[in-house]
Amino acid sequence: MRATVIHGAGDVRVEDVPDPVLRQPTDAVVRVLRACICGSDLWPYQSMKPSPEGQRIGHEFLGVVEDIGADVAGFTCGDLVVAPFVWSDGTCEFCRAGLQTSCRHGGPWAADGVDGGQGEAVRVPQAGGTLVKLPTGADPALLPSLMTLSDVFPTGHHAAVKAGVSPRTSVTVIGDGAVGLCAVLAARRLGAEQIILMGRHKDRTDLGREFGATEVVAERGTEGVERVRELTAGDGTHAVLECVGYREAIETGLGVVRDGGVVSRVGAPQYGELPLGFGTFLRNITLTGGVAPARAYIEGLLPDVLEGRLQPGRVFDRTTDLRGVPDGYRAMANRQAIKVLIEP
Amino acid sequence: MRATVIHGAGDVRVEDVPDPVLRQPTDAVVRVLRACICGSDLWPYQSMKPSPEGQRIGHEFLGVVEDIGADVAGFTCGDLVVAPFVWSDGTCEFCRAGLQTSCRHGGPWAADGVDGGQGEAVRVPQAGGTLVKLPTGADPALLPSLMTLSDVFPTGHHAAVKAGVSPRTSVTVIGDGAVGLCAVLAARRLGAEQIILMGRHKDRTDLGREFGATEVVAERGTEGVERVRELTAGDGTHAVLECVGYREAIETGLGVVRDGGVVSRVGAPQYGELPLGFGTFLRNITLTGGVAPARAYIEGLLPDVLEGRLQPGRVFDRTTDLRGVPDGYRAMANRQAIKVLIEP
Repeated sequence: MRATVIHGAGDVRVEDVPDPVLRQPTDAVVRVLRACICGSDLWPYQSMKPSPEGQRIGHEFLGVVEDIGADVAGFTCGDLVVAPFVWSDGTCEFCRAGLQTSCRHGGPWAADGVDGGQGEAVRVPQAGGTLVKLPTGADPALLPSLMTLSDVFPTGHHAAVKAGVSPRTSVTVIGDGAVGLCAVLAARRLGAEQIILMGRHKDRTDLGREFGATEVVAERGTEGVERVRELTAGDGTHAVLECVGYREAIETGLGVVRDGGVVSRVGAPQYGELPLGFGTFLRNITLTGGVAPARAYIEGLLPDVLEGRLQPGRVFDRTTDLRGVPDGYRAMANRQAIKVLIEP
Repeated sequence: MRATVIHGAGDVRVEDVPDPVLRQPTDAVVRVLRACICGSDLWPYQSMKPSPEGQRIGHEFLGVVEDIGADVAGFTCGDLVVAPFVWSDGTCEFCRAGLQTSCRHGGPWAADGVDGGQGEAVRVPQAGGTLVKLPTGADPALLPSLMTLSDVFPTGHHAAVKAGVSPRTSVTVIGDGAVGLCAVLAARRLGAEQIILMGRHKDRTDLGREFGATEVVAERGTEGVERVRELTAGDGTHAVLECVGYREAIETGLGVVRDGGVVSRVGAPQYGELPLGFGTFLRNITLTGGVAPARAYIEGLLPDVLEGRLQPGRVFDRTTDLRGVPDGYRAMANRQAIKVLIEP
C-alpha cells in the first residue's frame, strides 16, 4: 500500500510500504477514509535530520475496520471508526482514569513498528481500547468534523476542561491554528461568554469569531498583553488556553491570566524552562494541561458533531489525496493552509 | 512600644518604635498576645543588605482589640482576634472569591508604613476584612494552635486544597518545616490515606508521623525520588505538596508526582525558572499553589483547633519573649528550632 514517510526537514514522500496485517490478537486493521496533517507534524517537518530509511508519519485517521483480532471486543468488520492520536488498552488504571496518554500498554502512532495515520491503511494496536465506533451511516459531509475527534477538537477541549472553563469564566485563547480555533469552540461549548482569541491571521480569526470568539487581539507580546488587559478591566481572564507551544506564548499567557487563574497548555512545548518564580506564586497562577487524552473525550463530543451543532471540521481549508500530502505539508508550513484533510 | 526590626542578614533587633494609633476609620489596634517567626522571615534574615534604619518584620499575630476605627464592623474592644499574614478589605472581587492575597486594597505586614507582627501591638489596616474573631474565653493552652491559623496551618492547607487532596489521593509532602508538617496535618484532615513525608530531621518527621504521615523518606534528589516511587508501585503520588521553595524541591516534586497529578507549591520560590518542558507536558502534570489566602481558610479550620481535634501548635518547639526574638531567629536558621512562638 501507499503511505507517507518523512525523510528529514522539508522532505515528506509517499512510498510503497508493507500492507498492514494483524500481529497480535488485540490488533485491528483499518482502511483509512480520512486522515490529516497536524500542526505537530510540522515540528519534524521543520527540524528532522536527514534519514535515508525515513519514518512513517501521521497520527489522525478515521476509517473502516477491515480485519480484526480475536481479542478485540465490540467491533466487527465494516465498522466506521475514529482513532485518537495515541493508542491505549482502555483497561489500565490510567485509561480508566481518563488519562489514556499515560496508558501502561499504549503508545504513539508512527513509531516502534506502529503504522502512521497518513496512509491507505493502519494496523491498530490495542484496538478494543483505542478505536471509537461511529454510526456507519454517517453523512460523508460530516467526515471532516468527525475526523477532528482524533486530535484537534479533543485537544482544544482538553485545554478548556483542564482550565475549568464554565459559564463563569472569561477565557483567552492563544493561537489561531486549528487547535486554537477548536479551543474557542470548546470554550464556547462549555458556556464561556467572553472568549478573547489572540491571533493575527484574519482568515483564521474570522473563523474563530464564528466559533465563538467575542474579541480578537492581533497584537503580540507586551502589546498583546496590554490589549487583553484593556478588554478585561485590567485584570486578565480566568482561563488561558495556550495552543502554540512556544515559550513566548506561555509568557503571554502568564501576562493575560487573572490572579488565581489557570494557564492551560496544549501546544507541544518547544521550550525547556518556564518563568514560574515568585511573581506567579504571589498571584496564585496554575499551569496545567498537557498532551490531550483524546480517547477520553470522543464519546462526549460526538453528539454535537453528529447532530451538526458544532462543525470543527471547518478548520480544514484544503483537501488532498495521498499524492498531494507533501504539498499539504508545504502549505501548512507556509501558513497557506490552516489544516489539510487527506482522502487517501 | 517595643518591636522587632531587621537591619540586615543576621541582624534582628528589638527596638523602641512609635505606639500604633488609628490612622484610618478602617483601622484597628491590636495588643499582641502571641506572635511567631516564620520560615519565610529567614529569607531576609539570610540575605538582606545592611540597612541603618531597618525594617519592621513579622506577619503572624494573635491578640486583643484595643482600639477600633469608626468603619470597622463586627468587632469591639476586648475581642480576641487572629490576623492572617496579609491584610485585605474583605469586600473586593478577589476577597469574595477567596483570594484575599490579591485584594485590591490589601497588602503585606511590615511594609509601607504598616506594622510588623513581632511587637507589642499592631495597627491593623482594613481591620473588618482582615481580622477573625476567636472565642474570648479560649483556653490559653490553645493559643499556640490558634496562632498557626495566621499562616502555617492555612498555608499547608492551601497546598492540599489546590492539589485536590481527598480520600482518593495519595500525597507526598516535601519539607519537614512547620509548613510541611501542617501540610501533612491538612492532607490527613482532607482524608488522604497515604502521606509520604520527605524530610531528614528525625524530630520533625516524628511529629509528621503523629500528624498523619504514613511513610518518611529521608533521602533527597534522585535517591529520594526512587524511594517514593518504590513506595507507590513505581507510579508516584497523585498530589505533591511542596513546602520548601527551592528549585530542587520542585524538581523532586516533578519526579515523584504521578502522571496526571498535581505539584502544589507553597514554599516561597527562591528560583526564577522551572523545568516544565515536554516531559511534564506528556505526563499532564499540573503546577499550582502559591501564597496562601489564609483569611479564606481560618473559619473553616477553626473548629478542629478549638475543639482540640487538631493541634498544629505542636510545630512550635520554642517559646520566647520579645527580647529573645533575635536568638529565636538564630535557632530557626540553625535548625535548632522548627518554629519559635513569641509571647511579647
